[in-house]
Amino acid sequence: MCTLEEERTTTGWAARDPTGILSPYTYTLRSTGPEDVFIQVICCGICHTDLHQVKNDLGMSNYPMVPGHEVVGEVIEVGSAVTKFRAGDCVGVGALVGCCRNCSPCKSNVEQYCNKKIWSYNDVYTDGKPTQGGFADAMVVDQKFVVKIPDGMAPEQAAPLLCAGVTIYSPLTHFGLRESGLRGGILGLGGVGHMGVKIAKAMGHHVTVISSSDKKRDEALEHLGADDYLVSSDASRMQEASDTLDYIIDTVPVFHPLEPYLSLLKLDGKLILMGVINTPLQFVTPMVMLGRKMITGSFVGSMEETEEMLEFCKEKELGSKIEVVKMEYINKAFERLEKNDVRYRFVVDVAGSKLHPPS
Amino acid sequence: MCTLEEERTTTGWAARDPTGILSPYTYTLRSTGPEDVFIQVICCGICHTDLHQVKNDLGMSNYPMVPGHEVVGEVIEVGSAVTKFRAGDCVGVGALVGCCRNCSPCKSNVEQYCNKKIWSYNDVYTDGKPTQGGFADAMVVDQKFVVKIPDGMAPEQAAPLLCAGVTIYSPLTHFGLRESGLRGGILGLGGVGHMGVKIAKAMGHHVTVISSSDKKRDEALEHLGADDYLVSSDASRMQEASDTLDYIIDTVPVFHPLEPYLSLLKLDGKLILMGVINTPLQFVTPMVMLGRKMITGSFVGSMEETEEMLEFCKEKELGSKIEVVKMEYINKAFERLEKNDVRYRFVVDVAGSKLHPPS
Repeated sequence: MCTLEEERTTTGWAARDPTGILSPYTYTLRSTGPEDVFIQVICCGICHTDLHQVKNDLGMSNYPMVPGHEVVGEVIEVGSAVTKFRAGDCVGVGALVGCCRNCSPCKSNVEQYCNKKIWSYNDVYTDGKPTQGGFADAMVVDQKFVVKIPDGMAPEQAAPLLCAGVTIYSPLTHFGLRESGLRGGILGLGGVGHMGVKIAKAMGHHVTVISSSDKKRDEALEHLGADDYLVSSDASRMQEASDTLDYIIDTVPVFHPLEPYLSLLKLDGKLILMGVINTPLQFVTPMVMLGRKMITGSFVGSMEETEEMLEFCKEKELGSKIEVVKMEYINKAFERLEKNDVRYRFVVDVAGSKLHPPS
Repeated sequence: MCTLEEERTTTGWAARDPTGILSPYTYTLRSTGPEDVFIQVICCGICHTDLHQVKNDLGMSNYPMVPGHEVVGEVIEVGSAVTKFRAGDCVGVGALVGCCRNCSPCKSNVEQYCNKKIWSYNDVYTDGKPTQGGFADAMVVDQKFVVKIPDGMAPEQAAPLLCAGVTIYSPLTHFGLRESGLRGGILGLGGVGHMGVKIAKAMGHHVTVISSSDKKRDEALEHLGADDYLVSSDASRMQEASDTLDYIIDTVPVFHPLEPYLSLLKLDGKLILMGVINTPLQFVTPMVMLGRKMITGSFVGSMEETEEMLEFCKEKELGSKIEVVKMEYINKAFERLEKNDVRYRFVVDVAGSKLHPPS
């Protein structure tokens, strides 16, 4: 361990260009400031956004870039003003590591909507240095953006909750959709979608998985516990199901028509978009007006909601369905994620991997 | 007056084909059934939807068609089970005259969202006959779809409230936007838009009119009492105003981009669509996700909300800005409405017009 005055180096796996290939990269971390927590990473989930970022799909990537924003680790050292954590705690870090603290969203504790929020990686911190994510040996993070992992929750189970989990939990809570007995739809069964089924079921909802093919029917119904499965090209089943859902969580990350799904919603039903799609989506106004339906979206969740969600998942004994891999496998994992070939989330066992380049 | 067993004839002005030209038309009205109210029309507002209907713009017009769904009249006779009204009452009829009474929207008193709702005209009533609207001497309407006009409110002032008024009042109430001090935008200053300014101001909101040109600036600010006026092509003012509005009521009835307006909304801001537009509108998902904004719509209002809105308007002494015309002028009025050449609502003085063809 070093003193607060020194800078430390750490090694992570970074993409160097839009090929998105990750390889070992050593960089400095800031000293543990008064509000900071120095965390040794245990494991880190791979989210679809990581794939977009390393490949510069959103056109705003800076390299070298160490991705990873579903980070679980152990607290090694805390700054003098840190009150919430102490060495030895198992903690998590999600998509954000900073915000302005003065704007209206910050003051309302929904800092994820702060216009000056700082992303966990591919961003610039207040000290002018690039932020780097969780596919690395260590991180230094302001205590506001650190959450305690509940006792007894396995780190690799907790990791995907820190982005995928709260991404589902936050809108269900915010839009008044926690009540037991509601009928929900989950469109797309990837990392976020599978968590959607689990969290919605744990809230006591009747959950329909909606998919473009029949391929995931058994998994949805048998393994994830969904109540129904709809293939969107099956016009007669779609027609039967019209006007039956209180909400749909739409996790599809590419262009798709909205009208078939708006039709499934009841009066006042909510279509909640989660996929970052830069091709415009379309709808005709009578589809929303005659039924007062709502097209909306949501972006991760607040730190408060993250804590609440972790407690909820612990209480409901709700885990993610994951495939744990070593860091050496990460490029292959990204390749497979791109082909949707994972059930449902990769988690990298960072602590159990060799991060350093062979010397 | 006739007995309940007889059918009566009445004369209205009907369109006969998609030219939309109205001329006198005599037809039968059903007898006053136990739940019915027989109403002699005093006046009737002209709504933009009437124009769409007479010209078959929505592809579902049946002729002859007597339009008119902002109807104020005097009760002449009531059925045996009618308790809410008696002869001599001044009453109103809006866009609907029937619903199923059994579905979930009907049971929740939002019968405007019943899938079996019956429109005031261009629809078929439970007796198999076409419904005909308020540009006529008389109507027979089920008491559920009749509202009392508050004492002291002038019939021609009340008429536009029955569609335009409640169309604004309902979403502001439903979406939790009644609180004083909110900042609202009204996009488009026609019949519904001008009512939007008046009702939002009466609720104590800061109201910005957003328009494609500078033409209506003085009227919006001086005559309607709006607080601000934004020209949508003025990029620098639009930029300044970004992230400032709690809601926008979008009354534009033709295709338009949504993104400039979504940008004006704060976190959790609501874009409420009111125009029936069959050309798909477009948006990119980050515009709603990063700010949890909502694109929604609303369709007229319930009978309960209509009554509430009339009381609200009476209490706030809120009237419509109208141009009263005789029935003989109605074709010219439609022509002018199509060119947006009215400030802001035509009301036909039905009782003061010669409805019958010269014999």
